[in-house]
Amino acid sequence: MGNPSGHHVVDDNGLQVLEHEECLRLLRGSYVGRVGVSWRALPTVLPVNYALDGDDQIVIRTGAGSLLGSALTERVIAFEVDDMEPVSHTGWSVVVVGRARMLTDPDAIARARLLPLRPWASGDKDLFVTIETRIVTGRRVL
Amino acid sequence: MGNPSGHHVVDDNGLQVLEHEECLRLLRGSYVGRVGVSWRALPTVLPVNYALDGDDQIVIRTGAGSLLGSALTERVIAFEVDDMEPVSHTGWSVVVVGRARMLTDPDAIARARLLPLRPWASGDKDLFVTIETRIVTGRRVL
Repeated sequence: MGNPSGHHVVDDNGLQVLEHEECLRLLRGSYVGRVGVSWRALPTVLPVNYALDGDDQIVIRTGAGSLLGSALTERVIAFEVDDMEPVSHTGWSVVVVGRARMLTDPDAIARARLLPLRPWASGDKDLFVTIETRIVTGRRVL
Repeated sequence: MGNPSGHHVVDDNGLQVLEHEECLRLLRGSYVGRVGVSWRALPTVLPVNYALDGDDQIVIRTGAGSLLGSALTERVIAFEVDDMEPVSHTGWSVVVVGRARMLTDPDAIARARLLPLRPWASGDKDLFVTIETRIVTGRRVL
């Protein structure tokens, strides 16, 4: 929708608040994200390879034996992508929150296989976990 | 303690399990990590700038108005650092799990100020959050 005033919206920490379209653009430009989830009452963070399927969902390819593949399906997860530059001290971060769903429909799986997507682990990798991109927030260091 | 056999320990997903010392070595070599935490019953992931204080604790500098500075103190958080190479498809990930504590002792704060540590946000930045490195796990893509 754009910001008609042309001014940046800034949060309480002096970070620029990114609009939905900008968040999606940044998500489209990266390949590695991190999943944050609570597992056995403890938080954990997992790096994952991902791709966008259209603008509507994040697709992660994972293994049958992985935490993401087995335990996290149907749980609410946070999916974060960022690009932080320690030297120039600039960067951005985008977070998607949603329910992780395992693809089970054969047509959806066939479509997911066409995405530019490889899992990090080298085991038997045939599961696709998706998260809708409806709840997306982003921040940029000005 | 080392692995006397010289073989890699591999987990169910074909990832090499890293030993404690190797995890600490990797943590010492990076500057940006991600904190995973549950906030208002939803998981989230925040990128942070960090430094090691000796081998015993991670120190994160943050702002008084930030989620990390205000809400997460005394909660159990996951702190993750990784280096994933999408092209060569190699990489590693180290996760520390522990209780986030705010530094309040003036001597401890003075010591933390000497660490090579800048916060990402540009607000009033005078809080230091620490996590002990006792519970550390690491994986490498072989």
